[in-house]
This record gives sequence, C-alpha cells and structure tokens, in this order.
Amino acid sequence: MNVATATAAVPKLDTYRDLARQLRADSIRCSTAAGSGHPTSSLSAADLMSVLLAGHLRYDWATPKDPANDHLIFSKGHASPLNYSILRAAGAIDDAELMTFRKLGSRLQGHPTPLLPWIDVATGSLGQGLPIGVGIALAGSRVLSAPWHVWILVGDSETAEGSIWEAFDHAGHEGLTNITAILDINRLGQRGPTELQWDTAAYARRIEAFGWDAIVIDGHDLSAIDAAFTRARGVERPAAIIAKTVKGKGVSFLEDKEGWHGKALDADQAKQALAEIGAVPSRAFSTLKPQPWKPWLPAAKPVELKSYTDALATRKAYGEALVSLGALPDVVVLDAEVSNSTHAEDFKKVFPDRFFEMYIAEQQLVSAAVGMQVVGLRPFASTFAAFFTRAYDFIRMAAISRATIHLSGSHAGVSIGEDGPSQMALEDLAMMRAVHGSTVLYPCDANQTAKLVRLMADREGISYIRTTREKTPLVYGADVAFRIGGSSVVRGGGADDQAAIVAAGITLHEAVKAADELKDAGILVRVIDLYSVKPIDTEALVEALGATGGQLVVVEDHWVEGGIGDAVLAAIAEAGAMGELVGYRHLAVREMPGSGKPAELLDAAGISASHIVAAVKDLL
Amino acid sequence: MNVATATAAVPKLDTYRDLARQLRADSIRCSTAAGSGHPTSSLSAADLMSVLLAGHLRYDWATPKDPANDHLIFSKGHASPLNYSILRAAGAIDDAELMTFRKLGSRLQGHPTPLLPWIDVATGSLGQGLPIGVGIALAGSRVLSAPWHVWILVGDSETAEGSIWEAFDHAGHEGLTNITAILDINRLGQRGPTELQWDTAAYARRIEAFGWDAIVIDGHDLSAIDAAFTRARGVERPAAIIAKTVKGKGVSFLEDKEGWHGKALDADQAKQALAEIGAVPSRAFSTLKPQPWKPWLPAAKPVELKSYTDALATRKAYGEALVSLGALPDVVVLDAEVSNSTHAEDFKKVFPDRFFEMYIAEQQLVSAAVGMQVVGLRPFASTFAAFFTRAYDFIRMAAISRATIHLSGSHAGVSIGEDGPSQMALEDLAMMRAVHGSTVLYPCDANQTAKLVRLMADREGISYIRTTREKTPLVYGADVAFRIGGSSVVRGGGADDQAAIVAAGITLHEAVKAADELKDAGILVRVIDLYSVKPIDTEALVEALGATGGQLVVVEDHWVEGGIGDAVLAAIAEAGAMGELVGYRHLAVREMPGSGKPAELLDAAGISASHIVAAVKDLL
Repeated sequence: MNVATATAAVPKLDTYRDLARQLRADSIRCSTAAGSGHPTSSLSAADLMSVLLAGHLRYDWATPKDPANDHLIFSKGHASPLNYSILRAAGAIDDAELMTFRKLGSRLQGHPTPLLPWIDVATGSLGQGLPIGVGIALAGSRVLSAPWHVWILVGDSETAEGSIWEAFDHAGHEGLTNITAILDINRLGQRGPTELQWDTAAYARRIEAFGWDAIVIDGHDLSAIDAAFTRARGVERPAAIIAKTVKGKGVSFLEDKEGWHGKALDADQAKQALAEIGAVPSRAFSTLKPQPWKPWLPAAKPVELKSYTDALATRKAYGEALVSLGALPDVVVLDAEVSNSTHAEDFKKVFPDRFFEMYIAEQQLVSAAVGMQVVGLRPFASTFAAFFTRAYDFIRMAAISRATIHLSGSHAGVSIGEDGPSQMALEDLAMMRAVHGSTVLYPCDANQTAKLVRLMADREGISYIRTTREKTPLVYGADVAFRIGGSSVVRGGGADDQAAIVAAGITLHEAVKAADELKDAGILVRVIDLYSVKPIDTEALVEALGATGGQLVVVEDHWVEGGIGDAVLAAIAEAGAMGELVGYRHLAVREMPGSGKPAELLDAAGISASHIVAAVKDLL
Repeated sequence: MNVATATAAVPKLDTYRDLARQLRADSIRCSTAAGSGHPTSSLSAADLMSVLLAGHLRYDWATPKDPANDHLIFSKGHASPLNYSILRAAGAIDDAELMTFRKLGSRLQGHPTPLLPWIDVATGSLGQGLPIGVGIALAGSRVLSAPWHVWILVGDSETAEGSIWEAFDHAGHEGLTNITAILDINRLGQRGPTELQWDTAAYARRIEAFGWDAIVIDGHDLSAIDAAFTRARGVERPAAIIAKTVKGKGVSFLEDKEGWHGKALDADQAKQALAEIGAVPSRAFSTLKPQPWKPWLPAAKPVELKSYTDALATRKAYGEALVSLGALPDVVVLDAEVSNSTHAEDFKKVFPDRFFEMYIAEQQLVSAAVGMQVVGLRPFASTFAAFFTRAYDFIRMAAISRATIHLSGSHAGVSIGEDGPSQMALEDLAMMRAVHGSTVLYPCDANQTAKLVRLMADREGISYIRTTREKTPLVYGADVAFRIGGSSVVRGGGADDQAAIVAAGITLHEAVKAADELKDAGILVRVIDLYSVKPIDTEALVEALGATGGQLVVVEDHWVEGGIGDAVLAAIAEAGAMGELVGYRHLAVREMPGSGKPAELLDAAGISASHIVAAVKDLL
C-alpha cells in the first residue's frame, strides 16, 4: 500500500477546486431538473474526477473518436450526473443539453450510453466497467501498442460483484500498466453501509493480492489525488487508487447520510446545496490533449476459407475459419480456457499475438471483447454455449453499448453426450434471440460453418454462432452460398411436398435421415435448414406452408421454449400466415437429460430421425 | 497463512493410504469403463478426500437425508469419478453401479446431480459449489443452529470465476465458522497451466484478504491433511485448505502432464496405472456418523395475506406478501442490496433473523438460495429483474439440481422510466421460460401479487415473479382467486367479442384502457390477463380464438422474442389451434429504449393503450 503525497503547485489546485465545485453544482442542477438520479454518488467522486479531468486525462473533446484519446469509464454508471457534468466542463456538451438529463429523447440517459460519442460503453449494471476497461487495456498493450491510458471509476458497492475480481485477477495476471481503477469508497450503498465501509486497508490488501499497486488516499485531498494519478500512470503494474470519500461531499445535509441514494434534491434543497457549494465558474475548462497517434495494423489480406469434403465437427470448422479470418488484422480471438474444445486454439497456434486466454471467467471474456471493439478490433469470443449463460448480463449490456462482438458457443444440446446436462446448452437460443439486434446462427456442417463465420465477421451488433461437439457429415459443397437471414431447402422443395421439417445444426441431419426414410415410404417432405435463427427466413417458411398444405414439424436440440420452434411460429404469425398452419409438431427437449451416447440422448429426447418420421406420419 | 503439522496416529494413516489407493483405482476403473471422464482431476484430490472421508466427514450414508449430516460438495464437478468412488467406498453404492458411470439411465452422470441422494446439488459449471456451500453454511449458522460442517472441494482453475470471490467475500463478511474450502491446486487446467500454477502463497494472500483462515499444505501428505481438517473445523473463521497437489498423482505417466485433462485411460493404460497404484482394498470403509440432531423451527402459523383497496406497485405488494409468508418458519428472504427497491426490506423489518443481505452479488444471491433449500428452507430471492441475467447460469444449474427456489425480479420493462435500459428487464421472460420446469408469473395488481406469491411458496422447482416499479391500480378485489397455469378475463368474455387482447403486468392496464376506449367506439374486445406466463392457460387462449373469430393482439413490456407473444403462439400451436388464428398483432419492445417518463416510454415502445386501440382497429 502506498500513500501518495502532495506535489502539485498551488495554481493547479485552484483549478481543481473550481472545477470540483462546478461538477458538484452541475450534478445537483441536472438531477434536480430531472427529478431523479444520483447526485450524492456523484458528489463523492467529484474531487477525483476534477483532478483527473483538469490534470491527467489526455483527451481531445472535439474529436471523441481520436484513437489517441485516453479512455474514461464510469463503472459506477449511476454517477451519470458527474459523468455528464464532466462533458459539460470539457465543453463537449452545453448547459442546455445537460439540463435534458433523463428526459425522453435526450442523449443524457439515466445511465451512460455511447449515444454520447465520448462514452465508450453503456454502464449501469454494476461491475462491468472495470472488466471492459481491462479489455480496452489488453487491446492497447498487446495488439495496438497504444499510448493511451484507461481510467475506470469504480464504486465501492460494486466490488461485491465477482466480475470486479475477475478484472483485478486478469489485469494483474497480464501485468497491465495502462489501466487505473479509481475506487470511490464512500461507505454507503443503496440501502445502507457497504460490507467494508471505510476499511481502505482491507480493499488495499485484496487488490494488492491480485497483483495491483494499491494507492490509498483521502479522496477529497486534491494534492493527494493529483499525486496518486501521477503515480498510477507511471507504475509498472495496474494501479488502483483507493479513495476514502464521503457520499454527498460538499453539502452538509447530504454528507455521509443514509436515505439519500438515488434521490434528487428538490428545488429548495438544491438551492441550499448550491449556496453551500459557493461560487461556481460555470465554464469550459482546458484539458490535456493526447500526443498525435494512430494505430498501425498490417494491411488486410484476402480471406480464404477452407473447403471441406469430409465429416467434421462444426466447432472444428469454426476454429479453422478463425484461422482464415486471421488475414484481417483487426480480428482477435478470446477464449475461456476451453480453446481445445471450442477450437479457438487453431487461431492461437497461427496468431498467438492476437489470441487472448481469459481463463475460466466468462464475464471477463465477454467484457474484454466489448472493450476490444471500443478501440476498433473485431473480437471473436468462445466458450461452451452453456457457459455464455454466465455472461448474459454482459451480453445484454453489450447490446445497450451498441457493441459489435462475435460469440461462438460450442457443445450445444443433448448431443454432446456423456458430460451430462451441466455442459449442455439448451437455453442459448432463447437467451441470444432475446438480445436486441442480435444475430443467431446455427450451422450443420463444416462448409456452412466457414461461410457463416465469414459473414459474422462483417455483421454489426451481437452475433452468435452455435456449434456442435460431434462430427457431422457434409450437407453442402464448398461452393454453396449462405446469407444471414437465409435458409436452405435440402430435401424436397417441389409443389408435391406433403410436409415441411424445419431443423438446424445437429437436428438437420436427423431431419435428412427422416426425409430419406419417409421418401422410401412414399411420403415426400421438404427439409428446411434454418441456419439463420435470427434474422429468420420468413419467406421460406410461409412458402413451405403454402406448398405443403400447412404441415410443419420443427425439431431442435434445445428446450421447448424460446428456440427455433418459437422463432418459426413468431415469424409465421408476424407474416399473418398462422391461418395456413394446419398441422404442427414441435420436437424439442422436454425432460431433463442425463448422460449417454449422443445418438442415445437425441433419441431419448425425442428429436432423432425416428421421432421425426413418427411426427410426420402422425401429422398426415 | 498457517502450515498445518502432522498429529495423526499411524493406524489412521494406514487407513487413509488404503482408501486413497482405492479412490484412485476406482476413479480410473469407472472412467475407463465409460470411455470418458476426468481421472486425472480425480487423482489429484484423492488423498484429500480419503482423509476427509475416513477421518473427518460426519455422515450417515444409510440416511442421506439425515439433517445432522455434514455436507460435501464437489465444486469441481468434473472430478465426479472421485465423488462416485467416495460413494462406493462409503458403501452407498456398489461396484456394479460405479461401473455404470456416464451410461444412459445411470444416476452416475458425467457431473454430479442430486439424482444420487448423497449429492446436494448439481455441479459441473465451475465456480458454483463454493457459493452454494456458503448458502448452506449461512442457513446452518443463522437459521438452524446446525452442528454440521460444509466441505467444498474447489478446483484451482475455477478460482478464475468471479463467483468464487463472491463466496469468499460473503463467507468472510459473515464470519462463517462452519465451512471449509478445500482447494486442489494441481497447477493444470483444461488446456494448460492455471494463472497462478503452484503459487500457493498467492492463493493464501488473496483468500486471507477476504477474511478466511488459509491453511497451506502438501495435498499428498496425509498427516498434514489430517491436521488441516482438524484445524479447519475448529477455527473461528471460514477456513480454506490450500493444497498443493499433482494432477494425475499416483500414476507416473499422468503426473503433472499436459494433455490428460478430461481424458479416460484406455484399457492398457488403465492396467498399467492400476498396477502402479498397487493392491486396493476394494471394500467399504467405516466413517464417522454425526451426533443425532434435528432442526427445530417454530410451528407454522396461518398465512394471512393483506387485501388492498388502493393502487400500489406490485413490487411493494411482493414485499408485504413476504411479511405474510413469514408465518411459515422455513421462509427465508435474500436480496442483493436493493431491498428498498424490491421491497424485500418489508420482510427484513419484521423477520431480521431470516433476512439475508447478499450485497450486489447476484450469483451469490441465487447460489445462497439454492444452498438454503438443500437444508429445507424456502428461499425467496429478489433483485431488479434485469440483474437476474447476471445469475442465469446459476438458475440454469438450479434446475439441474432439482432445486426449489423462488425469485422475484422487480423493475421490469420500459415502464421503469428514467433510469434507462441498463435497469430495464426486457429479456427476463425469455430467460426464465427457458429454464426446465420453471414457473413464470407476472401480476398486474397488489391483490393478485399477494395471491401469486402465496402460490409460489408451495410451488416446486424454479419459480419467478416479475414485478413492476410503478404503482398500478387495482384490477381485482381481494376475494378473487388465481391459479398457477390460469388466466383471467377482465373485459368482455362473451360470444360477441370481436378480438382478444392478451396482456399481463403493466400492459394489462393499457389493455383495459384500450378495451374501454374501443367499447366507446362500438368494438367489443376480450382482455385476457395472462398472469401465469408458464405454465400457460392454453384453454383460455383457444377459447378466445373461437369466440373472436381468431383475432388476437398480444401486448407486452419485453423484447419481441421469447416472452408472452412467443408463449401464446407456442400454446396455440401445441394445441393444434393455429389454423384458427386469423389475425395477429404483437406489440412488444422492438427498439432500444432510452430514458423518459413511464407513460412516455410505454408509448414510444408502441405498447400503450393508444397503440393497442390502433392494432385492434387495424385487425378488424
């Protein structure tokens, strides 16, 4: 633990003091105007942010997308009044816009989002800003050799989130020198004292044990703050400034008082508070600009996908497609200690500098991907599909961040076999469909996987590909094209089809077997490969209803809720074609599976070829 | 850090050695018979588990539900061969059953589940056993005054999971003395070395900083292990035994070798390994039994629900219903530092001894609930609905654990208003529907909330109630009954209804307003309150189609995917009635919301009364 000592000259301190007063006043003014928000959580960190803004942050506010800029993230997103007051003090927004805080249509939402170009990512779900910052810092140090520094304002309450410790762990392990966590230890959470209250020594012991430099200061001592930031930027480890602060600092009736979390002052209270804060400059402050710098990446080469002629697991084809994508210099790959299962290791072997081992920390995995895309990289992150459930809050928030990340979940469904239900993703399609603007892909063979991974790389938003553990035979030649939002008819397709079977991934093969068997029995069926689960090929589905007299079977290796069946029905209904759906059978996983061989489990779940045959016969 | 020293007498050590040999041999035998599994991860912990089983664990293997038993959880669930070999050594299962490992229909799945009555919870998603153990220990110390001890075998790789640190944090904060984490530091993860490898001092620094007693030992020194367990049970803090071990220990060609994770030995390799391990007793070992003990809880009193006559937020009615449920002595309430928002604080005020503040750690929140139900308590856990996404993996695994837990998510949907999208649950219905055997409830008023919370308390499995931030007027009198799987018709209901509107929660009020407005315009509509989203009232939906000529509007404060719309269509299709669905409009959230007033946001999302009116008119 290092206690920073004062070194700053007095004129600088005057500026810090003026700015802190303005940040406090503006935090109160905008939240009072809104009638809601978190002024007291803003006041505790106002001195910290004043010194950072006026003395240490290197940022060209006129050019928020300047790649040389430092990064500042409010992990404690509820202190948005302070964040927005910073933008006003920097001249990025004007006072009139500040006063639109929390109003319909304003960019200044209750919690920060990148609708404001100076905001990297959305925060407000606690414990996310720090792990995202670790991702930005990793990109800066390992891929971009960037000069900028990452500053994260962390609340004390949010250190109860495990994701904060994944971030401390990972940054410590990587020895990142370009990240500083600024902990605002104001002692009070939403409904009372935090676990550690003002025990800054306990925070320091924990954080140091995770490999960081811990700098304990009085968070209202401007000189000490100034010295701490200087030290933090220079130290050869990640640095944490553990600042003892007072919630509501600067306003007597708010200071260290319970019952004031997330509460705006009324007009009279605000008047009194502003009087206590005193004369406020109400101006734009000058700040440090970064030295000119641009990232350099080698030129992109043509992406040449492998073509396949033999059965292969789609997870393996994913890994090999990543190797092809390596021709694009901004592609980076992250994995949560299962790269030999997801086959992300194929990329690692060829491009070790752009591969990131995130260990078994799925929250940090997704956060790091979000961070890396902030600075222009194209991240692909993989783990077992089941374990993305661990990071659902981070995926949800990534959508609010308008982030573009590419996720690959392997070992989907009961078809993984012996490992049993803990390793089987059976809710991932439901989970990923319900992410705003997401793309959900589910290939059935190696050639299709390669093509879909290539399409993912250029897809904006959250894209997800579901891969299969088992080897699957080829359905497609390497020359077949696919499109996001498309589907393929792999059996039947004529006007004499008696029913349509919709499947994807592992069940597509069962559907094909069923179709061939039914054909032998004189029943012609259309098999639709719904490899793009979202967006969905409504046209093909409606066309199939028309052609088959409305006889439809959907078969999927997923719980009955939220997956392909729900997606198909929603598409048909949205198109106004439900009336044409005469007969429907939905084969999906309805009972808790156990262990067994993949084929046994597909059969036990009622989603194997024989069950499809029976369902079609039952329909007709 | 405390280095335990040897105290055990020699005969005991002989037993430990014999048992360890048997555990190693059986771990190899069963995984080789299965052709898959994790023998090397079992071998590293065999000495630890031998000493625990033969010398310290107090367990009546003939009576796994004896409430006096200690609890042993394999947080590293992939070491299931060792877990099952323990069961065999204890005489709980026989050798023939051991050899069914990973086969279809066997209770001995790839990862442990409570299909085996000696297993408390399913593990296999890493980082869950320890926080669940914290829940068991909390119940034992704070509610039951139980004599038993909780032992958790933790893998080194899984300490990268933030949830492990939530558990260390929480147990340290609570000063639990009845839990011991046994860390198997075997240096190798799935695909290579762990972050900290054999740096046991680093583990000790971290764990001690979180308030635990850290005992560093050689995990193959039987005397040291014995002493460590004795110390761990006696120390006045939670204890962590940090055991340096060798992966594959006992078999020369496996020891500390990469490339052997999750790989069974073939027959020849197994033969060689068993020869190295030497003569194996192949018998049941005697173990310590617990002192007789039964939990005592006061007698249940009648549950008297409040009845309401005025508008109230359903989250507030939830809190007040919890107070009523307090008459049941096994009801416990947990919250993630937002109890003044979820209104779980109402329970805390009346029953502080049965209220658990879990701070902002949603993974630990759900894990603790799972742990508490292991020992017979009835947990209700609450946070903002959006933040249950943080714990989705834990909810998923709770279903595999066949756990009964009750979750309440407040602040659902855009109707929360100014806080913005980070705080709005818009995917929770999708997420919770796709949990095996789940119950999903969504009340619209205070009287209905009280009744549904009462029903939840007796509901098996994972039940979830979605509550609303805003005050909502009463739709029902206090005398109206509801049922899980039911629905209510609150407007219309006759044969002359021209369309049906399905809604729940906040949108039910919009639907009612729309129905009244439409009535004034001469259009009769039926409004169905779908308060039970899962199970769903298929009969009422199909009946409505028949009555209205198949004109249906679904309106929900949720993303368009996976929520009420999908549930309704799936129910209709499953019933074979989609041919009757002539016209369909689905009003749901389709664009990323921002901040604003609740009514503004409902309108902006297209789910307010005026949009419903327009949709109905458009249909007809």
